[in-house]
Amino acid sequence: MNNISLDRCCIHTITTKSWSFPQAVEQYAAAGVAGISVWQNAIEGIGPHQAGELIRKAGLDIVSYVRGGFFPHPTSSGRAKAIDHNKKLLEEAAALGAPMIVLVCGASPDQSLATSRQQIKEGIEAILPLAEKLNVKLAIEPLHPMYAADRSAINTMGQANDMAEIFQSDYVGVAVDVYHLWWDPDLEKEIARCGAHNNLLAYHVCDWKVNTLDLLNDRGLMGEGCIDLKKIRGWVEATGFDGYCEVEIFSDIHWAKDQKVFLNEITNSFVLKV
Amino acid sequence: MNNISLDRCCIHTITTKSWSFPQAVEQYAAAGVAGISVWQNAIEGIGPHQAGELIRKAGLDIVSYVRGGFFPHPTSSGRAKAIDHNKKLLEEAAALGAPMIVLVCGASPDQSLATSRQQIKEGIEAILPLAEKLNVKLAIEPLHPMYAADRSAINTMGQANDMAEIFQSDYVGVAVDVYHLWWDPDLEKEIARCGAHNNLLAYHVCDWKVNTLDLLNDRGLMGEGCIDLKKIRGWVEATGFDGYCEVEIFSDIHWAKDQKVFLNEITNSFVLKV
Repeated sequence: MNNISLDRCCIHTITTKSWSFPQAVEQYAAAGVAGISVWQNAIEGIGPHQAGELIRKAGLDIVSYVRGGFFPHPTSSGRAKAIDHNKKLLEEAAALGAPMIVLVCGASPDQSLATSRQQIKEGIEAILPLAEKLNVKLAIEPLHPMYAADRSAINTMGQANDMAEIFQSDYVGVAVDVYHLWWDPDLEKEIARCGAHNNLLAYHVCDWKVNTLDLLNDRGLMGEGCIDLKKIRGWVEATGFDGYCEVEIFSDIHWAKDQKVFLNEITNSFVLKV
Repeated sequence: MNNISLDRCCIHTITTKSWSFPQAVEQYAAAGVAGISVWQNAIEGIGPHQAGELIRKAGLDIVSYVRGGFFPHPTSSGRAKAIDHNKKLLEEAAALGAPMIVLVCGASPDQSLATSRQQIKEGIEAILPLAEKLNVKLAIEPLHPMYAADRSAINTMGQANDMAEIFQSDYVGVAVDVYHLWWDPDLEKEIARCGAHNNLLAYHVCDWKVNTLDLLNDRGLMGEGCIDLKKIRGWVEATGFDGYCEVEIFSDIHWAKDQKVFLNEITNSFVLKV
């Protein structure tokens, strides 16, 4: 598998959490990174319009706005609130100039996963007309099964494909994240299926550390773990996908570093390991 | 779903880790627990013969010997060593009087999961004749995907069924553990498949805590988490399984307690929640 250059590299702002939004934009651009995925918390002060301006001025592409979803809730008022929140996020994504939002679909420990999946379907249905109107796509991100209790009832590519295919819309697809999916024996087959339905919207990279210390914030830098990144990118690109490889790393260890040192590690590992 | 009584309750010695083996046997029996699954480390001092005698004298059933497996290794000498170790475990299980050993099949971050699966198949093949000779069954335990890096390349019931069905032997089957499998959308179907092939050898219970603090040692007591235990037991019993529900809890929090208090919590939650 060939290496790729930084013009395929996008970074999620959460990856360099301790930088302010303007710092992140400036530093990514200076490092030769081509794209940015914007987390909502990063632009809470500045707002989506101004954030978009800043990014375009720096010459970066806006890849995605992160993150919508969390549709399931045991009460109908809770579900309605989630739908309203997602509509607000879609408006923000449009104001920012982001072509898609990533959906962490949600789950509730107070009900079955099947019920949560039904509520996810209803949530996507409810926001799809606005997504179409605003020209912002919805990328369903299957999450690792260790997040099934309260973060996502969609835990495999197969389930994400099932969900996306219900809608048969150019505005609903799937975000493939290696961290969540690398272990799945059906991954190659399900990535191919996703591509065949034109549903592969995004590709996220990091690594799975063999001795993972924390369920949430101990992701590895690419090359630090056991994921065969080149093999999976091969499967993704075999579908025709030629978009960004988005670096999304939650890590107490990497966040504790000088973020400029960490960014340098990211770009080095990107061109060698992704 | 009906409640069940303690005559279906088996406890894994690791669950009350700070007790010596004789203490565990005595306390389980005194609490009305009917079965015990013996971890190798628990009887390292006393040896399997004497351990078996002690258990029988206390009137407990020996349900399983834990744990074999860990077959994959990048070198052939490493794999041969694992096979030898498993043969030793089978001899110990026979000496103990255990009708099965549980296989945590293994994985190696230095090779693909597909390669590890092939080596698991070869490992089981290599020890099966001895298992048959000693009348000790091999229970393949699929492990949660968060253990795919170095503990098991078998991460779903579907994969465990695939592996077990290769052998078409009364001496190879599957151990169903709710902790590893509760999230799987195919679980009901795959449990039914397992039963239809007469491969369902064991059923392990605990709970998945919504805020899991540690990947290894933060399992919940039944009722502390979000697993629908009665639903899953219903699926298991629909196959005709009427064996023990084995309580297997690794938990720094519960281990820190007075183990007699914890045992009381286990038996209370067993009759209400399992």
